[in-house]
Amino acid sequence: MSNIRHALNVKREDDFAKWYQEVISAADLAEESGVRGCMVIKPWGYGIWERVQRLMDDRIKAAGIANAYFPLFIPLANFEREADHVDGFAKEMAVVTHHRLIADGKGGLIPDPEAKLEEPLVVRPTSETIIGDAMARWIQSWRDLPLMLNQWANVVRWEMRTRMFLRTSEFLWQEGHTAHATREEALEETHRALEMYRACVEEDLAMPVIAGEKPENERFPGADETWSIEAMMQDGKALQAGTSHYLGTSFASAAGIHYQDKEGQQQLCHTTSWGTSTRLIGGVVMTHGDDDGLRVPPRIAPHQIIILPMLRDKPEDEAVLAYCEEVRKSLAGVSALGEPVRVLLDKTPGKAAAKRWNWVKKGAPIIVEVGTRDMENGKVAVLRRDALWNMDNGKPAMAFTARDEFVGGVAALLEDIQAGLFNEARERRDAKITRGMTDWHDVVNSFRKGGKYPGWVEVQWAKPSGAELEAVVEKLKAEKLTFRNVPRDPLGDGTPDDGVCIFSGKPAVERILIARAY
Amino acid sequence: MSNIRHALNVKREDDFAKWYQEVISAADLAEESGVRGCMVIKPWGYGIWERVQRLMDDRIKAAGIANAYFPLFIPLANFEREADHVDGFAKEMAVVTHHRLIADGKGGLIPDPEAKLEEPLVVRPTSETIIGDAMARWIQSWRDLPLMLNQWANVVRWEMRTRMFLRTSEFLWQEGHTAHATREEALEETHRALEMYRACVEEDLAMPVIAGEKPENERFPGADETWSIEAMMQDGKALQAGTSHYLGTSFASAAGIHYQDKEGQQQLCHTTSWGTSTRLIGGVVMTHGDDDGLRVPPRIAPHQIIILPMLRDKPEDEAVLAYCEEVRKSLAGVSALGEPVRVLLDKTPGKAAAKRWNWVKKGAPIIVEVGTRDMENGKVAVLRRDALWNMDNGKPAMAFTARDEFVGGVAALLEDIQAGLFNEARERRDAKITRGMTDWHDVVNSFRKGGKYPGWVEVQWAKPSGAELEAVVEKLKAEKLTFRNVPRDPLGDGTPDDGVCIFSGKPAVERILIARAY
Repeated sequence: MSNIRHALNVKREDDFAKWYQEVISAADLAEESGVRGCMVIKPWGYGIWERVQRLMDDRIKAAGIANAYFPLFIPLANFEREADHVDGFAKEMAVVTHHRLIADGKGGLIPDPEAKLEEPLVVRPTSETIIGDAMARWIQSWRDLPLMLNQWANVVRWEMRTRMFLRTSEFLWQEGHTAHATREEALEETHRALEMYRACVEEDLAMPVIAGEKPENERFPGADETWSIEAMMQDGKALQAGTSHYLGTSFASAAGIHYQDKEGQQQLCHTTSWGTSTRLIGGVVMTHGDDDGLRVPPRIAPHQIIILPMLRDKPEDEAVLAYCEEVRKSLAGVSALGEPVRVLLDKTPGKAAAKRWNWVKKGAPIIVEVGTRDMENGKVAVLRRDALWNMDNGKPAMAFTARDEFVGGVAALLEDIQAGLFNEARERRDAKITRGMTDWHDVVNSFRKGGKYPGWVEVQWAKPSGAELEAVVEKLKAEKLTFRNVPRDPLGDGTPDDGVCIFSGKPAVERILIARAY
Repeated sequence: MSNIRHALNVKREDDFAKWYQEVISAADLAEESGVRGCMVIKPWGYGIWERVQRLMDDRIKAAGIANAYFPLFIPLANFEREADHVDGFAKEMAVVTHHRLIADGKGGLIPDPEAKLEEPLVVRPTSETIIGDAMARWIQSWRDLPLMLNQWANVVRWEMRTRMFLRTSEFLWQEGHTAHATREEALEETHRALEMYRACVEEDLAMPVIAGEKPENERFPGADETWSIEAMMQDGKALQAGTSHYLGTSFASAAGIHYQDKEGQQQLCHTTSWGTSTRLIGGVVMTHGDDDGLRVPPRIAPHQIIILPMLRDKPEDEAVLAYCEEVRKSLAGVSALGEPVRVLLDKTPGKAAAKRWNWVKKGAPIIVEVGTRDMENGKVAVLRRDALWNMDNGKPAMAFTARDEFVGGVAALLEDIQAGLFNEARERRDAKITRGMTDWHDVVNSFRKGGKYPGWVEVQWAKPSGAELEAVVEKLKAEKLTFRNVPRDPLGDGTPDDGVCIFSGKPAVERILIARAY
């Protein structure tokens, strides 16, 4: 490997936001579409999303939950009924008012005034209400419960300030919606979904998260309980990576979801909803990216191994290509991380060094280069994306390995990369969580003076609610801080260390995480 | 199995259209959503679509084509530029004009007049133009070619008269879009996609199709060539099940898709596009449904084998359930049709007979019933959905089979069902294609008097174009007939039997299919 390094123009520590944009572009994940707030997800970015989808969907199906598909358009009446939703997040929405275009007589097109809809339609910001309508039709008796549905779909929330993957007007997501006979069963499903998210995001995306319950002020509108998984990005900010809500009977009441119990009595269902989105891809970038580009964890890499023939427009090229093809074939039977390995032999035209850096920036876990000499020696040159540089001398770290040795060891190598990315992220995160502060001014100062990457602070509190909570939230807002969640694992036997709420001095009942957030 | 038959209310031969609606509902595939022209695809229907998607997507990826995702919204300017598209099909479209809802002061919501978009946005009826924009950005040199993209997405075409799966305002589809350096390469891709569709629809959906080229009047607007696969439904009508277009350089010219060739000259790309949609599910219903409901070919069945314990609220139930669980486990290692078999042990509450008929109507390929006696004898009762009734005596055809024998033979059974459904449909179709007519009045009369299922007629013609073709098309329209396609296999050495065009008496150059169509 040539010693010339084609690093990004922007380093993480210099301008994290600008670095993020550069990775998205350099790794060929996505780009602006020209349509306000909407992005084009390019093949490498969409390939990562397809992997996330597949792995999440397997987990969803394993839980006995079926996918279904509901309409893109939602009648206004559904939003009028769900006043809570409208207050909460749904005012900025794309509204369809016409069903035809006609020529304007000046070479352009306009909505046909004759084709105005009697009732405008809203492009779904979530399918909560329309799935609620279906549940009300489909559920009659206790025999129909639980009803557990999931949908993979695009949704639209008109956003004024957008940022690729993190906040776009249109995004892709999955939304689970379930109805149960009892509070206990619904809570169990709420927690199962959260645990499914934790497992998928940690095991597949290699993103360590903290699972916990959101405080009252951060609850989904109308929810009795909202739980989340929170990931720490490399700049120390939090990214909410998935949420799971227990909606009690309030949503069932609004949508009319009843069942007849075994005694013949009409009862309201207890419902849940839970979702994750393409935002996770933004999280992968901000967790695993480095100053050379993206690093994709093997489980979600569309291709895990790239074979790069070093061609020189010479007669030997044919033999090199044939050798590469043999390497590809010998990898075809290999499984790693529970699946057949995904290998690409990159025969596209172009200079080998440019192609190598292209894959480095995209973050393919393993790049295998093959030149004439490697072929003659029965070797391959192996580059691990997670260890590009030799830390001792700053030179490229490329291992010249016997071909069979490489094939035999590639499963362990991929597993090592997957585990390594997770551990690296977890150690970084753990080092940036400060615990034990008992004075609010210390918290404020740590964020004000703590450099560019202050991380998170975990404090003890008395779990105030209502006006008392609002006052505390205002304090946080003034410092651009937010509550993330109350980690699921309570303190030992549930008794805080010293029993004092950092805000009120009252006896503390739990710990809560505070952070800046995306 | 109880002898009581719970057939559908409507038989195919009495009212095919009504029968179709009843199957959709009885098989729990989909239902009206309450939103004009949009349907809810229920879990069993969506599960079939997911299988179709997976099998088609595997074929798309195997051809080296990557998935990507483009915005839901398309600026008006794209349609103004593509006048051909607008003339062709795209006038009836959902138009977004506002990005916010506000209260109307009367308890309702209205689009906020303050939040009117400067330029309305169209909900994509196809992504042709927005993908064209991306191709124009992404392609610079011959090194960037071929560029081959596919998208799985929802699209909207405002339809006045809708029919579930066959014509709905919103539907799900895949659209392939490719750009090439030469006409030859683009034509090769056009034909590859068509052959991929033929293989997937015949091998996976068990729907026999005829692949061929559309005549000039049926071409996609702007296309140089349009190819299709055509399937015959049980009422003899044709369903266009997939199309593949060679767009020449006209689309590249409109969208500005150029490349620099090896000599440094700017050249226009040759492009293709090809698509299939949820319409295929309608085709599966009308091809394989019978008077008892749907029959799903094993390859696309979400569950291929349903294990039904015959529970009686008695102490033996537990042993029956345990036995069923053992049967399920012994099937877990079995592969059929190239994949692990998909088995569901249906433990939901309800009477066994009702549950059985539920699965018969849904069309699960194999239903396995287990009662106390079966368990004691080490047997299972096997019901093949494709042979529900004993043809000799009209009684239910259920095979009591030793459990190990069933498990050992289930792969062959599923393969037999898959092949049987295809052969049945092909024989029915072939018997309904009339060839050799040389007088147009015979064709007209065969459709007028040919009973309810006239089928297709294949005639020879001189391949007229322009005004001459229009006159012929008018003749067909008067009889509610359409040209389907010119089958890909020409007549032997390319010489028609008697060399006379049925319309003009001129020397014939090819054969073309005529049919009523969906």
